Amino acid sequence: MTRTPIRDLPQHAGETVTVSGWLYNRRSKGKIHFLQVRDGSGIVQAVMGQLDVSPEVFERSGALPYETSLSVTGAVRADARAPGGVELLVKDVAVHHEPPQEYPISKQEHGPDFLLSNRHLWLRSRKPHATLRVRDAAITAVRRFFDERGFVCLDAPIFTPSACEGTTNLFKVQYFDEECYLTQSGQLYMEAGAMAFGKVYCFGPTFRAERSKTRRHLTEFWMLEPEVAYATLEDIMDLAEELIVAVVKHVLEHRRPELQVLERDLSKLERIERPFPRIRYAEAVALLREKGLPFEEGNDLGAPDETALSGHFDRPVLVHRYPAAVKAFYMKRDPADERYALCVDVLAPERVGEIIGGGQREDDLAALERRIAEHGLPREPFEWYLDLRRYGTVPHAGFGLGLERTVAWLCGTEHVRECIPFPRMLYRIYP
Amino acid sequence: MTRTPIRDLPQHAGETVTVSGWLYNRRSKGKIHFLQVRDGSGIVQAVMGQLDVSPEVFERSGALPYETSLSVTGAVRADARAPGGVELLVKDVAVHHEPPQEYPISKQEHGPDFLLSNRHLWLRSRKPHATLRVRDAAITAVRRFFDERGFVCLDAPIFTPSACEGTTNLFKVQYFDEECYLTQSGQLYMEAGAMAFGKVYCFGPTFRAERSKTRRHLTEFWMLEPEVAYATLEDIMDLAEELIVAVVKHVLEHRRPELQVLERDLSKLERIERPFPRIRYAEAVALLREKGLPFEEGNDLGAPDETALSGHFDRPVLVHRYPAAVKAFYMKRDPADERYALCVDVLAPERVGEIIGGGQREDDLAALERRIAEHGLPREPFEWYLDLRRYGTVPHAGFGLGLERTVAWLCGTEHVRECIPFPRMLYRIYP
Repeated sequence: MTRTPIRDLPQHAGETVTVSGWLYNRRSKGKIHFLQVRDGSGIVQAVMGQLDVSPEVFERSGALPYETSLSVTGAVRADARAPGGVELLVKDVAVHHEPPQEYPISKQEHGPDFLLSNRHLWLRSRKPHATLRVRDAAITAVRRFFDERGFVCLDAPIFTPSACEGTTNLFKVQYFDEECYLTQSGQLYMEAGAMAFGKVYCFGPTFRAERSKTRRHLTEFWMLEPEVAYATLEDIMDLAEELIVAVVKHVLEHRRPELQVLERDLSKLERIERPFPRIRYAEAVALLREKGLPFEEGNDLGAPDETALSGHFDRPVLVHRYPAAVKAFYMKRDPADERYALCVDVLAPERVGEIIGGGQREDDLAALERRIAEHGLPREPFEWYLDLRRYGTVPHAGFGLGLERTVAWLCGTEHVRECIPFPRMLYRIYP
Repeated sequence: MTRTPIRDLPQHAGETVTVSGWLYNRRSKGKIHFLQVRDGSGIVQAVMGQLDVSPEVFERSGALPYETSLSVTGAVRADARAPGGVELLVKDVAVHHEPPQEYPISKQEHGPDFLLSNRHLWLRSRKPHATLRVRDAAITAVRRFFDERGFVCLDAPIFTPSACEGTTNLFKVQYFDEECYLTQSGQLYMEAGAMAFGKVYCFGPTFRAERSKTRRHLTEFWMLEPEVAYATLEDIMDLAEELIVAVVKHVLEHRRPELQVLERDLSKLERIERPFPRIRYAEAVALLREKGLPFEEGNDLGAPDETALSGHFDRPVLVHRYPAAVKAFYMKRDPADERYALCVDVLAPERVGEIIGGGQREDDLAALERRIAEHGLPREPFEWYLDLRRYGTVPHAGFGLGLERTVAWLCGTEHVRECIPFPRMLYRIYP
């Protein structure tokens, strides 16, 4: 038996095909049953008249529980009013498995804890399904963007001996007779890669053991980290802009029905065009004060500050040159004013906040050694990293993009936990 | 200053361009210096005559240490004898950084421990560089293959509460006030995904805490895991074949120069065409006995058995229907003979051994409950997995492909540690 994906049905109008999937919804009106069947690629309405099938099949079909697995054979009829533009006129139904108990997720509202505990089933519902198809498209867009530009995908290790920015937020692992940590960033490894391959990126899971329970935190999330040799802060700001525009365009082109399921205001994505506003930290501070926020100059921006700033613009805003004192040891100082770092954060609009952080890296051996000491970091785990400044050091820059925060923005979703298939949070590692 | 990637030089024959990179090698002959410059995209020979540059530049260039970072401006000359088909006639050289100490990796042989400890620099050498570019192309090929076929990329979680096949080979993590494990397979999650999306795959790092130190083991490696609803063992064997052929073709098309650097016998890859031989476990046993191996029927195949079998064929061989007793609890039994499982291993040729393992999953609730009990596994962590059989269960199948073993085969590399950017092994987590 050949199965036809529901997504492809419009190409088969007039033909008789078989669709295999699950019963998503059902209603009856007089002598007709309307069965909504989903197969993962889409949903189609199968129309079954009493005289189309045997009396037994008709009677059973009117009582099938949700998530019954079944194959429906029928004629594809074009119908402009139907979602997807087609419906199926049923000729036969074969039931594979009829759930003996009621499906736990009803069409009514459920609390988030219940839904997250049933994530393995909740994935079948329309909104999670749409959100994760957007995530899939964003991944494809990112990879194509870098492939087309000659970047090499160079996966960073997950087990890391050194703690890039302190050990407080790291997960510790017993590694045979030693201890090590789960990576919170592949950046240092990408710097080694950039010196070998010119342009590299990694795209994998990263880990933060933060005891925070906010809408923007996961303990495990996917991060994209490109790094480019012979690149400056300006170069990397251009790259970040181009990437964001490419991802938005790809998702609009390939996931419009999904964004509609999510009731996303598409006009907000359609206006995402270069150039994005670029403001210095000092300008961001002035803007926050104008808005009446009690912001103290010299501090890093907190989540409420980012939210306020990101609500001010209709496209992503690049905030650059933060005070060096609040940023990581590896950031290069601005030669025009050493109090500031050559760094940039990209804040997505609509109060989403930071989706990208990056900048130019310190490429001078003596300066980097000084910073490691000033930050009270142990020297020995960074010896290999210092080697990159000993042997043909060059200006280089890169950034990290948080995938789930980006997907939350694309989908207009409040909480990042809905933007990853199986979210891991402070009190959640099941299922 | 616009920089031209070395890979693009053939398109600029006759023009004057600037290349930025590192000094890879150097020799002098009378009044000419030959500088081999690499930029990550390729290597070009820059020819510097004494009269082409100032006397200071000429003298300094004849003594530059390896891995000096520099920009070379010159005219691109087509030369069929040159690697890449072009060379650069130097007009000027700007040195960015001259290493004050000798580059630790010389052109002579080094031991593997030394090279692995200097992996951050060793990546710049020709063979690791070529190997990891092949890995990059294999990743691209895999993702395109599944994207084109309508699969959804659904990343499996790394933190897992349950231990799929026992806890002995798992890394344990302190997860706030609980304990959890690092995933050794995303399969169970992909099964949930297949019921929601029809066709899914995950492609991420997986972990095995094995105290083995062989050429085929890493503690951290990347695994690709597709899973398909309404699919049988036969379907998934077809999918595995198609995938392998697609990856080999893509790599041959896009990484031929790299395979040549690795001195790969290309004819062995060029003959990889469908169909692959498919043999039952019993036939594999007979073949091993013919070869004089002391194999006991009923056992799983060990590494030496796989090596012997994989040396027997000139293309990958699919060995299917192993004894159920030596396979995991979730494998569906063959209805034709319940002693065997509907499973398949794909062994790459040239004595590489297993690169894929998979099969059809048990889709019957009662049978699966029985297997969990028989394997002495705790029931509770698998409740969500059992739900997949409670609500619209369907036949489904999938497999896992080990990326680094596949790359080892493509490259003709003996050891998988060379097929991942920063290998993690029993005694190695640095750099």
